[in-house]
Amino acid sequence: MSCQPNDPPLRLDRSSTVPLTVQLSGGLREAMSGGLLRPGERLPSSRALAAQLGVSRTVVTEAFQQLYAEGWLDGRHGSGTYVAEHGALPSVSVPPNAPGTPAAPSDGPGAPAAEPRLSRAQARRLGMVDLRPGAPWVRSHDEAAWRRAWRHAASLPLDDDPDPRGLPRLREALAEHLRRTRGVRVGPENVLVTRGTGNGLDLLAATVLARDDRAGIEEPGYQRAHDVLASRGAEVVPCRVDHDGIVVDDLPFDLRLLYTTPAHQYPLGGRLPVPRRERLLSWARGRGALVVEDDYDAEFRYDVAPLPALYGMDPERVVLLGTLSKTLSPDLGIGWLVARPALLERVAETRCRLSDRTGVPAQAATALLLERGDLDRHLRRMRLEYARRRRTLIEHLGPHLTGDTAGLHVMLPLPAEAVARVVSETAGRGVLVEDTSRASHGEPTVHGLVLGYGAAHPADLRRACRILAEVVGREADGGQELR
Amino acid sequence: MSCQPNDPPLRLDRSSTVPLTVQLSGGLREAMSGGLLRPGERLPSSRALAAQLGVSRTVVTEAFQQLYAEGWLDGRHGSGTYVAEHGALPSVSVPPNAPGTPAAPSDGPGAPAAEPRLSRAQARRLGMVDLRPGAPWVRSHDEAAWRRAWRHAASLPLDDDPDPRGLPRLREALAEHLRRTRGVRVGPENVLVTRGTGNGLDLLAATVLARDDRAGIEEPGYQRAHDVLASRGAEVVPCRVDHDGIVVDDLPFDLRLLYTTPAHQYPLGGRLPVPRRERLLSWARGRGALVVEDDYDAEFRYDVAPLPALYGMDPERVVLLGTLSKTLSPDLGIGWLVARPALLERVAETRCRLSDRTGVPAQAATALLLERGDLDRHLRRMRLEYARRRRTLIEHLGPHLTGDTAGLHVMLPLPAEAVARVVSETAGRGVLVEDTSRASHGEPTVHGLVLGYGAAHPADLRRACRILAEVVGREADGGQELR
Repeated sequence: MSCQPNDPPLRLDRSSTVPLTVQLSGGLREAMSGGLLRPGERLPSSRALAAQLGVSRTVVTEAFQQLYAEGWLDGRHGSGTYVAEHGALPSVSVPPNAPGTPAAPSDGPGAPAAEPRLSRAQARRLGMVDLRPGAPWVRSHDEAAWRRAWRHAASLPLDDDPDPRGLPRLREALAEHLRRTRGVRVGPENVLVTRGTGNGLDLLAATVLARDDRAGIEEPGYQRAHDVLASRGAEVVPCRVDHDGIVVDDLPFDLRLLYTTPAHQYPLGGRLPVPRRERLLSWARGRGALVVEDDYDAEFRYDVAPLPALYGMDPERVVLLGTLSKTLSPDLGIGWLVARPALLERVAETRCRLSDRTGVPAQAATALLLERGDLDRHLRRMRLEYARRRRTLIEHLGPHLTGDTAGLHVMLPLPAEAVARVVSETAGRGVLVEDTSRASHGEPTVHGLVLGYGAAHPADLRRACRILAEVVGREADGGQELR
Repeated sequence: MSCQPNDPPLRLDRSSTVPLTVQLSGGLREAMSGGLLRPGERLPSSRALAAQLGVSRTVVTEAFQQLYAEGWLDGRHGSGTYVAEHGALPSVSVPPNAPGTPAAPSDGPGAPAAEPRLSRAQARRLGMVDLRPGAPWVRSHDEAAWRRAWRHAASLPLDDDPDPRGLPRLREALAEHLRRTRGVRVGPENVLVTRGTGNGLDLLAATVLARDDRAGIEEPGYQRAHDVLASRGAEVVPCRVDHDGIVVDDLPFDLRLLYTTPAHQYPLGGRLPVPRRERLLSWARGRGALVVEDDYDAEFRYDVAPLPALYGMDPERVVLLGTLSKTLSPDLGIGWLVARPALLERVAETRCRLSDRTGVPAQAATALLLERGDLDRHLRRMRLEYARRRRTLIEHLGPHLTGDTAGLHVMLPLPAEAVARVVSETAGRGVLVEDTSRASHGEPTVHGLVLGYGAAHPADLRRACRILAEVVGREADGGQELR
């Protein structure tokens, strides 16, 4: 390590309000991005550096942990700490200028906007607990059923011309599933098999939007919807939500399409009440707009039965998008778009035009999982499991949390100025959480964390909740320890 | 049947140059689209109608066959002939105003542009031989290897955050495959797993094109490339090709991107010669343009070894797209995008932004097929099989055909005025062929048929070639029989 403790990048200011850990990690980051510390270079041990700097070893350890999490450092405690190859590991969202690799694709709200960040696999390798939203728990599926489904898929003859609407048999099974679980009267003629809600929204946008058509999204909301719509040439208009969901009375009059999450608003967690649903549809009819209902995690509701899908109230005006990414696994790449048949056929034509497809074996495997009741059993099991996890969060953070008793995430409101500190401090203690500002396109109007309880092991979740409660508790007490 | 033989729609003109069969099918079509004949209505038997109209029964049979093929009629000879539900079956491309359902998605050139047409499954149900391009032969794969691959894929743990660039192991296997088969020096850092060439082109367009950027395609060429690029907001510019491929000296100076098929131009079938490749790259460097090399069927060459991919000549300027849709099956939905790492990372970011993905089990199955050499064995087997089929075409239609000894299609040039007649007459005799004008965006500059020899069984292919040779032979003799 070539820089000395008192060289500029590592000058620590004890009179500053910035915690020593944050000052130290900032200094090291500057040294690495400025080339003073080069990839592959070994850092001194935390003990040695603490002695050099005259700080407690905890300060150094936490700074190292933060830089590990951000991908600046490589290696493990005990076997030495090295400056990572640039770009070898991505950064968490703090700081924005860290080197990064892209996040993995994920599907539906509850999935953060694209910005360089630590992947879940990388977080696991670093031993961090991942409370960022967007991932389901994928380690409790029925392995025998899963293998049987794929064995079945592999036994079918290959097709040289798969139907762009999907396998007839899967469309039938999905229609049955939706009639039963989402209270809508649909047949296979209403169902197009997609790869997930993002794919469905993209196909719909490519079908119905003309260049510069105005498309509304929720604000705060799912930012990938913004990107998908903008990338098809739409002018994207953020539309205000409150804790019940989209605020109908504030909607602009000239939207061609409005993207919504009525079952469980992302990230605020509200469920759109029936009177507001009626007003929304009346607005859509009056304006000639199409309402997109992203039903991404509607299968998970832990108190009362979910409201039937909005689609059922006006199949002419609503397009329903769903996915198995949240209920089973993003691996699978299976979702659905539900619409009136004439619109569905137009979407299928778009699909041909753009050479878009859903893999046939995945469709056949999913069909069997539905037909044999495997998916239903899985959903019942996971509903219990997620309800337990949600209770864990409520036990530790209860008074602070908001959001309906549903889905895979809750929101933890915080004072605006505390959010970055909490994200950084919990990261330093091995827990990854997400700033709600990632769900805002412009200046955030809500502040806090979105906490996902899908990805972490229950034991890790409990530990992480304790850490988070501690950090947040300090903030509530005036954040003395941090200032 | 409510209309009488001498009512306007069925007035036959024996002095016309239009064959009686074509007149009759046209009249029936008009009656159906105009509502004179309604869905579900039973038509008279061919014998009765022939007697009514005073024509030979063959004329009626062939008109019925044509209308079956176009989806206007339902049922089978023997059990009655009925007017189909509108939209129940799609039309072949003649006439353009027939009711239709969308074509299935297909991948890469050799796949016709989207326009309502008979699906391959429908063609099979109607007992027709399908010589339209775009489909491989999918009934000779190694079933044991295929099942083993999916069994393996199903045995892996689920992932909650798949890498947007694809499974590392598959990227490695594809890089090895491309080094060996396409003569390019690439590693996994150059390979992003897509769902096919259409997906690759779309992601690239969404990554590098700004609104109204000009993107070139070949003319005649693969029309789905046009649609994919236009749908991302590009201004698409058709660029002239000749029998060697893209005409570099005619390229506009202001293209941001140029889509090409240098290994085997679609539909003309030329292979871009090396001097022209050099000029193309020099043009691209001079203009700051990116060249997209769609390598859709480069694995199939029956005379000499394929030219190494263009990508190898300038990895900075070329993006290579490939697919298993033509070599194995469109079922699978696996392809690749090869680019310099910095660009590849940007494409991966686009993927995240748009929630685009390739299913993980399909990737794992493909990896095993590559790793065990199953794909190589399949390619060797299919190369022999397609070479045999190609020879069948040459035996029957040899003097007329053009195109390199490669791929899954040939072109059969015809006088412009003969094409529609030949398409219609062969359809009437149970053989589906495709007009090259489908490969033109504007006014066609070449005329004839694109004949694909992937989809049809060898015995059917021989029979279809005989019919086609007969029909085309009559055209060459002045089309006496038709006039």
